[in-house]
Amino acid sequence: MPQSPTVNRQITLASRPTGAPKPADFRIVDAPVPEPADGQVLLRTLFLSLDPYMRGRMSAARSYAAPVEVGAVMVGGTVSRIEKSRNAAFREGDLVVAYSGWQDFALSDGSDLQPLPRAAASHPSLALGVLGMPGFTAYMGLLDIGQPKAGETVVVAAATGPVGATVGQIARIKGSRAIGVAGGADKCRFAVQELGFDLCLDHRAPDFARQLEQACPNGIDVYFENVGGAVFDAVLPLLNTKARIPLCGLVSQYNAEHLPPGPNRLPLLAATLLSRRIRMEGFIIMQDYGHRIGEFTAQMGQWVGDGKVKYREDVVDGLENAPDAFIGLLAGQNFGKLVIRVADK
Amino acid sequence: MPQSPTVNRQITLASRPTGAPKPADFRIVDAPVPEPADGQVLLRTLFLSLDPYMRGRMSAARSYAAPVEVGAVMVGGTVSRIEKSRNAAFREGDLVVAYSGWQDFALSDGSDLQPLPRAAASHPSLALGVLGMPGFTAYMGLLDIGQPKAGETVVVAAATGPVGATVGQIARIKGSRAIGVAGGADKCRFAVQELGFDLCLDHRAPDFARQLEQACPNGIDVYFENVGGAVFDAVLPLLNTKARIPLCGLVSQYNAEHLPPGPNRLPLLAATLLSRRIRMEGFIIMQDYGHRIGEFTAQMGQWVGDGKVKYREDVVDGLENAPDAFIGLLAGQNFGKLVIRVADK
Repeated sequence: MPQSPTVNRQITLASRPTGAPKPADFRIVDAPVPEPADGQVLLRTLFLSLDPYMRGRMSAARSYAAPVEVGAVMVGGTVSRIEKSRNAAFREGDLVVAYSGWQDFALSDGSDLQPLPRAAASHPSLALGVLGMPGFTAYMGLLDIGQPKAGETVVVAAATGPVGATVGQIARIKGSRAIGVAGGADKCRFAVQELGFDLCLDHRAPDFARQLEQACPNGIDVYFENVGGAVFDAVLPLLNTKARIPLCGLVSQYNAEHLPPGPNRLPLLAATLLSRRIRMEGFIIMQDYGHRIGEFTAQMGQWVGDGKVKYREDVVDGLENAPDAFIGLLAGQNFGKLVIRVADK
Repeated sequence: MPQSPTVNRQITLASRPTGAPKPADFRIVDAPVPEPADGQVLLRTLFLSLDPYMRGRMSAARSYAAPVEVGAVMVGGTVSRIEKSRNAAFREGDLVVAYSGWQDFALSDGSDLQPLPRAAASHPSLALGVLGMPGFTAYMGLLDIGQPKAGETVVVAAATGPVGATVGQIARIKGSRAIGVAGGADKCRFAVQELGFDLCLDHRAPDFARQLEQACPNGIDVYFENVGGAVFDAVLPLLNTKARIPLCGLVSQYNAEHLPPGPNRLPLLAATLLSRRIRMEGFIIMQDYGHRIGEFTAQMGQWVGDGKVKYREDVVDGLENAPDAFIGLLAGQNFGKLVIRVADK
């Protein structure tokens, strides 16, 4: 279904999921295209970013951001075109990074808009991936909390996703060994051959924990946590003294309705943090590091331009396909940064 | 049994404990008093510090320090007198802070000796408590990792122990609310009336978690972790965004032989650290902060001298009573810093 200039398709939250979201938890509705008031702009969505954190917004549980209300439009970052401007700071036709959500059109007073990074000019969807929030998450989490040093071992899961892929490549730039973890042989091969990871392990292998131990003969100095679950369990005994654990996501846990069965491994984690003097720190990129986005955009733009940081996108056409694509994302079915192409231009 | 100038009583590790140590896990043996070689001093123990970390040394499990071998003398900090000196840097009769372990006499080449802090001159055992390793642990963990601010809420358990008591009082000096947790009404009363905690809760109360929630209407900004277990479980849901968890000990867990039954709360901890952007960091005082001991000694000496930081000691007479006292320490039976008075002077 192509975008129409007269209809605002919206994907709303139909019901709060129990466990994995189902297609019926979403609803596509047609709304009128809104008219900007004085000081506002009308945004038309070109690309919609789908990211694991959105699962959290579908739940009512306390989190760092308010949940999406049932019946409301799903939230999400977008690359959008200024269709109409009643705000002198924006010109019609300009592309911006917005937070329009899962819909064709949205209004903004401009305060939540960012200019498209220059390095994304010829490839705007990168502003949602390596040059956007996921890349920024990788950059700050690894460099500010992880602080990898030459010769150290950095482990990251979802290694072909936009965060993991960027973490591994920055680790290599800093002279660390980068060990990736991904689901399936294709992703692992891509991580090593295209992204330059030293090694990438398939977490589905029955002897994954043993493979990880063999892959890290000098232990793990930085574990960049974005998945949780079994990968973390395998990492825990391998962590070195003074290891760092930046924690930006737990995608393997987002669909869980209950805590897993015992034994209770929390005391083991605490004892490990204590005896090995480890720092573990959660962060939310814009809230913790929003003030440093300029530094990120400049450095990452250069790295991408120089070919030092590569990326892979998984582009799905059509806003109406966002629910299925998102459900697949939580199951690890995407291969690269998942982006919905809502409109061609 | 008084100290003899001709016998070196030693308490050795007779066997590695299963669960809580038993008296039979220790053995008292008589050894000859050693003779210092050139460059060495002979130390005579006046006070022996008993601290929870010693439980870790009794186990063979990987930790930050080597275990005590079965048959070897138990390790531990001491205030000792130089009995004989064949090292020009030390004079006979001087008191030093040493690491002689559970025995009357020990040799040293001086490299592991610290001068007695000036503020402890008239009360040497304080060099093992508020002016020593536990006070230093409280000081650095709270100020460097915890970073309490005026108006914030700081929670610490073992509130009448040498670490907890000092944490609470430094928190008050920094303008924070200090909420203590201790075992029993006497300790709680002491924490409030003598140490100046705003409130102190008995963790043995059946509704402890509810009491803690009521005691922290604005949530918890710093949880100084030295016990683990049920106290941590009650703290976790109350942690604020950007809370800090310095982690120096887990005394409630040291006797555990197995992980506790489920559910597995590790994913809950990780999700909390993530969504509230919390930093949790283990540290081992001398390894992480040994280079800052001068700053600590000067500041804490002043606070103790001015009466701004108070302390309570639990002094047990006689080296032979160290095993029972240590077993009681792990069960929370001490009331204040547990010190063995090995000799009067």
